[in-house]
Amino acid sequence: MATIPVVEKITKANDQLAVLNRRRLDEHGIFAMNIMASPGAGKTSLLELTIPELADGFRVAVVEGDLATNLDADRIDAVGGMSVQVNTGGGCHLDASMIADALDRLPLEELDLVIVENVGNLICPASFKLGTHTSVLVASVPEGDDKPYKYPSMYRGVEALVVNKIDLLPHVDFDMERFRRGVENLNEGIVSFPLSCRTREGVDAWVNWLAVLAKQHISR
Amino acid sequence: MATIPVVEKITKANDQLAVLNRRRLDEHGIFAMNIMASPGAGKTSLLELTIPELADGFRVAVVEGDLATNLDADRIDAVGGMSVQVNTGGGCHLDASMIADALDRLPLEELDLVIVENVGNLICPASFKLGTHTSVLVASVPEGDDKPYKYPSMYRGVEALVVNKIDLLPHVDFDMERFRRGVENLNEGIVSFPLSCRTREGVDAWVNWLAVLAKQHISR
Repeated sequence: MATIPVVEKITKANDQLAVLNRRRLDEHGIFAMNIMASPGAGKTSLLELTIPELADGFRVAVVEGDLATNLDADRIDAVGGMSVQVNTGGGCHLDASMIADALDRLPLEELDLVIVENVGNLICPASFKLGTHTSVLVASVPEGDDKPYKYPSMYRGVEALVVNKIDLLPHVDFDMERFRRGVENLNEGIVSFPLSCRTREGVDAWVNWLAVLAKQHISR
Repeated sequence: MATIPVVEKITKANDQLAVLNRRRLDEHGIFAMNIMASPGAGKTSLLELTIPELADGFRVAVVEGDLATNLDADRIDAVGGMSVQVNTGGGCHLDASMIADALDRLPLEELDLVIVENVGNLICPASFKLGTHTSVLVASVPEGDDKPYKYPSMYRGVEALVVNKIDLLPHVDFDMERFRRGVENLNEGIVSFPLSCRTREGVDAWVNWLAVLAKQHISR
């Protein structure tokens, strides 16, 4: 099959563009984060809670990746965030060129933090670097405790893990120990935030971590 | 970019292989179904309940598609089903050639029904025909009522929809009317089965539908 060299060429070109994105972000003193998850794990809900908390210390923009619609960008705008919607037109992940286009549409000199909300997909986004400084996975309790075992590349490639919807723990079969073991085997020492966007339990710890990380980076 | 013609070539080659799979299934009088869903929507849980119910009337095998592990195939075996595990090694969907290989490993002359459990992904599997006779999407309540709007190609391309985890409706914000409207706009008249694999509510209607459909096909 002739497809493997083509795929390699595509990811190599993507990685080169990602380096350029990173350089551009750094030149503007912007800290950037790539958030990935299954469909419906709660990426946008998490951002709806996070952005108002950061409003005091940071000028934030969100790049919203979706196959279709502006629904998520509208939700970010509704909590006072600045957003740019990227519709992939069916594409299963964001890539570095889409981020370059999104950065073109943002007032970079007026920003401290850019959060990229990737397309809802636990597989493909893991293979495409965007140029962000850190990557976060949002898992959710109703997805099941077997997900680290079944989607190893995603769990392996992130710096932090949000475990959302812990308010549903009494209502589903989710063995937190089995989940944690699976995560630790792939990604030792990963920072983890069990939380519920519905009840807000645990959200403060996540916001504080992000604020400290962003501040460290920006003050460099 | 040279990638579009390459992708077209790949899907065209895939479609040709899918036709061969279909012919092979038909020659053996086998009815085949492709089940797709987000990670953790409950495809395997649904099959764990479905297979024992079909055991009286049908000889069933499951083709389990996963990035890694035999966890799902083991669950099928545990309820007395016959299974073949296909590990895509990171690949985000099953394709027709993987199904052809799986069919090679199954005793086709001894089967009535082949159920393909696709990789957990709400995007890529929609683009790859496998040669199955029907496609089913398993959605789940905690994923949210906006998913038909955000993942239109998947919702458009299936003949039936299972809405799993309805036992969680009291505990999450899910507007069934908004969800239904989104589905109907994309796929008018689609057959829909709201159910809970946890409580078994609604599972009988799904099993009956599948049994009738399979029987109709096999008796042709």
